[in-house]
Amino acid sequence: MNTVKDAVHDHIALDPVAEALVDTPIVQRLRHIKQLSTVRLVYPSANHTRFEHSLGVYHLARQALDSLGVTGERAAHVRAAALLHDIGHGPYGHQTEGVIMRHAGEHHDEIHDLLGGTEAAEVLRDHDCSPERVADLVAGHGELGQLVSGELDVDRMDYLVRDAHHTGVPYGTIDTGRLVRQLRVRDGELVLAAGNVQTAESMLLARSLMNGIVYRHHVSRIAGTMLERGAERIVDGGVSIEHFRRFADHDLLVGLRSHAPDLGRRIEERDLFKRALWVGQETIPAAVAQFPREAIREAETDIAARAGVPDDEVLLDVPSLPSMREANARVVVGGSVQRLEHASELVGALRAGERARWRLGVYTPDEHVDDVSRAARSVLGIDDASN
Amino acid sequence: MNTVKDAVHDHIALDPVAEALVDTPIVQRLRHIKQLSTVRLVYPSANHTRFEHSLGVYHLARQALDSLGVTGERAAHVRAAALLHDIGHGPYGHQTEGVIMRHAGEHHDEIHDLLGGTEAAEVLRDHDCSPERVADLVAGHGELGQLVSGELDVDRMDYLVRDAHHTGVPYGTIDTGRLVRQLRVRDGELVLAAGNVQTAESMLLARSLMNGIVYRHHVSRIAGTMLERGAERIVDGGVSIEHFRRFADHDLLVGLRSHAPDLGRRIEERDLFKRALWVGQETIPAAVAQFPREAIREAETDIAARAGVPDDEVLLDVPSLPSMREANARVVVGGSVQRLEHASELVGALRAGERARWRLGVYTPDEHVDDVSRAARSVLGIDDASN
Amino acid sequence: MNTVKDAVHDHIALDPVAEALVDTPIVQRLRHIKQLSTVRLVYPSANHTRFEHSLGVYHLARQALDSLGVTGERAAHVRAAALLHDIGHGPYGHQTEGVIMRHAGEHHDEIHDLLGGTEAAEVLRDHDCSPERVADLVAGHGELGQLVSGELDVDRMDYLVRDAHHTGVPYGTIDTGRLVRQLRVRDGELVLAAGNVQTAESMLLARSLMNGIVYRHHVSRIAGTMLERGAERIVDGGVSIEHFRRFADHDLLVGLRSHAPDLGRRIEERDLFKRALWVGQETIPAAVAQFPREAIREAETDIAARAGVPDDEVLLDVPSLPSMREANARVVVGGSVQRLEHASELVGALRAGERARWRLGVYTPDEHVDDVSRAARSVLGIDDASN
Amino acid sequence: MNTVKDAVHDHIALDPVAEALVDTPIVQRLRHIKQLSTVRLVYPSANHTRFEHSLGVYHLARQALDSLGVTGERAAHVRAAALLHDIGHGPYGHQTEGVIMRHAGEHHDEIHDLLGGTEAAEVLRDHDCSPERVADLVAGHGELGQLVSGELDVDRMDYLVRDAHHTGVPYGTIDTGRLVRQLRVRDGELVLAAGNVQTAESMLLARSLMNGIVYRHHVSRIAGTMLERGAERIVDGGVSIEHFRRFADHDLLVGLRSHAPDLGRRIEERDLFKRALWVGQETIPAAVAQFPREAIREAETDIAARAGVPDDEVLLDVPSLPSMREANARVVVGGSVQRLEHASELVGALRAGERARWRLGVYTPDEHVDDVSRAARSVLGIDDASN
Repeated sequence: MNTVKDAVHDHIALDPVAEALVDTPIVQRLRHIKQLSTVRLVYPSANHTRFEHSLGVYHLARQALDSLGVTGERAAHVRAAALLHDIGHGPYGHQTEGVIMRHAGEHHDEIHDLLGGTEAAEVLRDHDCSPERVADLVAGHGELGQLVSGELDVDRMDYLVRDAHHTGVPYGTIDTGRLVRQLRVRDGELVLAAGNVQTAESMLLARSLMNGIVYRHHVSRIAGTMLERGAERIVDGGVSIEHFRRFADHDLLVGLRSHAPDLGRRIEERDLFKRALWVGQETIPAAVAQFPREAIREAETDIAARAGVPDDEVLLDVPSLPSMREANARVVVGGSVQRLEHASELVGALRAGERARWRLGVYTPDEHVDDVSRAARSVLGIDDASN
Repeated sequence: MNTVKDAVHDHIALDPVAEALVDTPIVQRLRHIKQLSTVRLVYPSANHTRFEHSLGVYHLARQALDSLGVTGERAAHVRAAALLHDIGHGPYGHQTEGVIMRHAGEHHDEIHDLLGGTEAAEVLRDHDCSPERVADLVAGHGELGQLVSGELDVDRMDYLVRDAHHTGVPYGTIDTGRLVRQLRVRDGELVLAAGNVQTAESMLLARSLMNGIVYRHHVSRIAGTMLERGAERIVDGGVSIEHFRRFADHDLLVGLRSHAPDLGRRIEERDLFKRALWVGQETIPAAVAQFPREAIREAETDIAARAGVPDDEVLLDVPSLPSMREANARVVVGGSVQRLEHASELVGALRAGERARWRLGVYTPDEHVDDVSRAARSVLGIDDASN
Repeated sequence: MNTVKDAVHDHIALDPVAEALVDTPIVQRLRHIKQLSTVRLVYPSANHTRFEHSLGVYHLARQALDSLGVTGERAAHVRAAALLHDIGHGPYGHQTEGVIMRHAGEHHDEIHDLLGGTEAAEVLRDHDCSPERVADLVAGHGELGQLVSGELDVDRMDYLVRDAHHTGVPYGTIDTGRLVRQLRVRDGELVLAAGNVQTAESMLLARSLMNGIVYRHHVSRIAGTMLERGAERIVDGGVSIEHFRRFADHDLLVGLRSHAPDLGRRIEERDLFKRALWVGQETIPAAVAQFPREAIREAETDIAARAGVPDDEVLLDVPSLPSMREANARVVVGGSVQRLEHASELVGALRAGERARWRLGVYTPDEHVDDVSRAARSVLGIDDASN
Repeated sequence: MNTVKDAVHDHIALDPVAEALVDTPIVQRLRHIKQLSTVRLVYPSANHTRFEHSLGVYHLARQALDSLGVTGERAAHVRAAALLHDIGHGPYGHQTEGVIMRHAGEHHDEIHDLLGGTEAAEVLRDHDCSPERVADLVAGHGELGQLVSGELDVDRMDYLVRDAHHTGVPYGTIDTGRLVRQLRVRDGELVLAAGNVQTAESMLLARSLMNGIVYRHHVSRIAGTMLERGAERIVDGGVSIEHFRRFADHDLLVGLRSHAPDLGRRIEERDLFKRALWVGQETIPAAVAQFPREAIREAETDIAARAGVPDDEVLLDVPSLPSMREANARVVVGGSVQRLEHASELVGALRAGERARWRLGVYTPDEHVDDVSRAARSVLGIDDASN
């Protein structure tokens, strides 16, 4: 078997299906999609892509399948799914998910359509694999689908250690060797064997620390919000959503030059908007935290008007809470299967921490910060005394 | 400045006082005291010593002092204290603490006495440092003493990353660079600057995971209990406590051959006792978890008698709960200083986790496990249905 | 001082000049220039950029200056030069150097012009630094200029360890801590202190191994030759060389779509030309190894005609030998300064190794390999029996 | 399969034979033999033992066997040999080899005798393995014996990366994943596949740098010579050689206290002799470099007498040249098998480097350095002008 040298898992041996899949355009495209989109503006070494991440997920899937004793064509489908799990991502990954969903009316991993007519589907059929079955696994269906997309999936195992390696922030470094070896199938569900409550917790803790320190860093959020707004302008400017969703990162950057030149320049030169407002849930009216997109746009317009700044220089960023999907990971405790959130008090505490760290942001060019801050407080109904 | 190459911190530059102190017998002795005593029987790479740990603590102290802007003779005293902080340890570190305390009637870091008449004290005086002041700092007195021994001390920062490097268990790898840079002094207390609740949590989380996975691994606990019992025999056998406490690890191993040959052989060959009982707090009468040493000895004798095994082949191990000293670390939140346990819900959850993972153990040779198990349940008043 | 977290050097503290320089467009642009251009097509994790490399060079320069005892405005100029040393690079770094030199008639690091009218020059002047003096240092002038560009410069120290970290190939990992500490200035020259012949050798060995295994990997060379040819088409197609040289990597990729669509697609999808010929120096007429660019173009046209393939589907790649600049590093041996090539027999052996590994390549699409191979042998005068 | 967590190779899975062998006293003893004996006095983190090294060699053997497609009982014997390859080492490894050889009249790895009557032999037979065949493999016999002890053995692969990890000196970090994957068997010999001249060189370069920087560091050599002399006193003092060769490191340290108290104290407290002489081959009469042991002792006595210092305070250390066994590694080049020394000019250059770095040393307590230096020059016939 040929191997690829990876900075995280060292040599990754590719089976013949994987080797053929890697050479298809939909997988090669992932070389041009950064794993952490705008995080690189905070952690400059974080330029890794979804391509090597996909290889890493494939590698961990193979280890897990070996450990579970799954072989033959069942294993072949899971390995292919692991390798292909990210082909549905738009440019800059999660950052353009919203735009794509709104315009295309479907979730980014509508993998069945994507995989359908491609060269990758042909490769799969040539190797006696069913593209439909692979797509189902990517969607997390079936007990082994959980290995690709689920609470204990190898996707999150890889990205945590990979993001740690490339950002330099150590907290994502989990013991993937132990995790994949402790997986079991029980009553059709993927679980961790007895004695692994802390193993499961380690994954949750790693993600919680990486959320706060890396993934949700305010500079990355500002740039991400700017990028998302720029992406909308590209689509509004006439680029079809089908074309747009197949963009590579560099297409998006170049596209911004025509359709949103100011945002484009600011993102490329890291001349970012600043925080005019940065407040927690206890400070804002409950409704604001639930604002749908239209209400957000409306509030932006109102704030801009009241502050006397151009409409497109106010951005309101109302993030969702991190999902903590790992809380549902199943672990054998005292002979029976429990959800991690029942087996560990940490889950509740981490949720509380995520809530406490949650922030609504309003961003604007440096020179407007004071005006926009005042206007935003007024429009959003935030008491002046707070924050 | 001369440097020492360290596997964890790379080059450690030594100031002239440190260089002279390193050459004294009480520091050189630390080369012969393993940092993790019996943990190496589980994690075979964990053979690092308190010597390189002491150099690491010195190194982090210097970084912290630089960041705090502390210079001159104040800094010199703190650096010396960091280097000397572990000279009070007996052979096999914490494992013989109990024996030494019972016989010597003082805590192992009665550093003042230890430092008093030594060559190290002379070295300090030759460099215009006061041994008394250094000893005070080792004991944690004063705002900078907290840097050497306190909730945010560089001791725990070093051992976490060092233990991770040498065991291969990644969870101890914290961002020491950030921690030392975010330290501040506020009203005579060492605190972390604003925006560092997660920084403080990271240290607590690291220790909690390392506790469960490394420090309190049952194999290490069994060997540790055997070692402690062997150490008692050495002291009971006529070795003066003053002599014993200055033992190196190899003195202890060789001493066991004369005074407790069976335990000695078993420890050297890792032919350890096995668990006859391993139960959590909910299973045992409340009094048992608080057993003083005499009650433990008495229970062992009773269990042995009832099981019909030799008296010295039953060991009862009733550990204390981890202290979670980091819970008291102070962090600036919203402009005022808070204890971490007030700023973070994680502290309570981690405490709950430590309680849930707490286990009382009864150990005996493999062939007696069943008999001793029954006898122990009866003597300790544990319901047969449980466990 | 603010710090940036780097995957290689951990926290990099930025002095005020550096912090202001980092925010200028010519430095931010380096975020969009990959350090290893087409190497990522072989080592998929190697997506690091000249931006974080520049921070790393700055960091090592600061360490070296501290060790040399250079402070004040002398040090400030060197640090600025270290940070700015790569601003002259075109898109995809060395890969477009040839194109730029031919069209612009000057070397890429004609740093004086580049720095002249920029915001960075203003920043320097605002901090009492002279842009001219900084440019001189970037060009390697003066004893401290050698630290920025010379046989013992911190540029190569950083790229070796950084490329190792991001490719996963360990051989670049040198002991930068020792190197910077052993630098001395002797009679106006930067040298390594006595006892450091192996220290100097280690750098040379690291680069030699990285040359063979990473930098000159044939897949990267094929893609690089394709990219270079595409870049020429962009410039021939009317993009001014002044505009082109300020391109970011993504501008080049998008530019290829218009000006060389086939090459562009092939590079993006890694559907690369294959080797029709791959021969060492002993196999080819001596003149061929010295072919100027015109002769290369002419040979390509002849080969294509003879093979009956389109003119632009034959690429002839005649690389130069690696420079081994480190061979001139100065080391104190027996009290006097020697060039490394006199102090170490390794230099000659490594040169022989580079010559033995040197290969001329002819590349063409997979389906033309046999025809082009025959044609190329005939045109270049290579005996059919060989290879 | 159970796994052991290793700081270098992460999880090492143990097959049932290996698991049973690990539990035998002759393997457990290796926990108490340091891999790098006195190197820890220079690199304080280098406390790793032959136990984890043996696990690592086992692990790499398994990978190599998998890659070579060797399975079944052939593979089982090789894996067992890999695990047991170091059981013949005396205390402090190579440092007591000379003493043991002189007194026992056989080489330390007279593995057949050692393995003969042990529990390990029983374990092997219980698992249908032949102890004799395992011993043959440890001795390097047969094509797969070369994997255990030969120019391309997994022993040196493991120790290079392990010593790098624990000393912090990066140069031992070779790409073991590539090495084990590129092994082939050709005409009964273990070779590296075509395209691997640099792969073979990398191992040679790594060892050469580690020799100079780590293994032959003068402080380690001084302590090693002192230790060897102390070991002789222990054996001369009545400890039988059969008993002595089964010592663990701690037995040796404690033994020194009775039989050579001054040397013992000095080694424990790192209060080492200093160099009175440190000269290269060009400086000494040719005969001196070939001195047999008796001539060395005689010279020491003469030097001591002439300098007026006690007989046992002068140590003459005449090392052999490093063997560079890797020079004989076989690599496929141009279709035929070549020895590395024919395929690479580096071998000769590295040999020259080893010769240039070779030093004869005379060691004595600090206070006698000047007297002993003069006396040694006179006794050994070294021109006063030199050095």
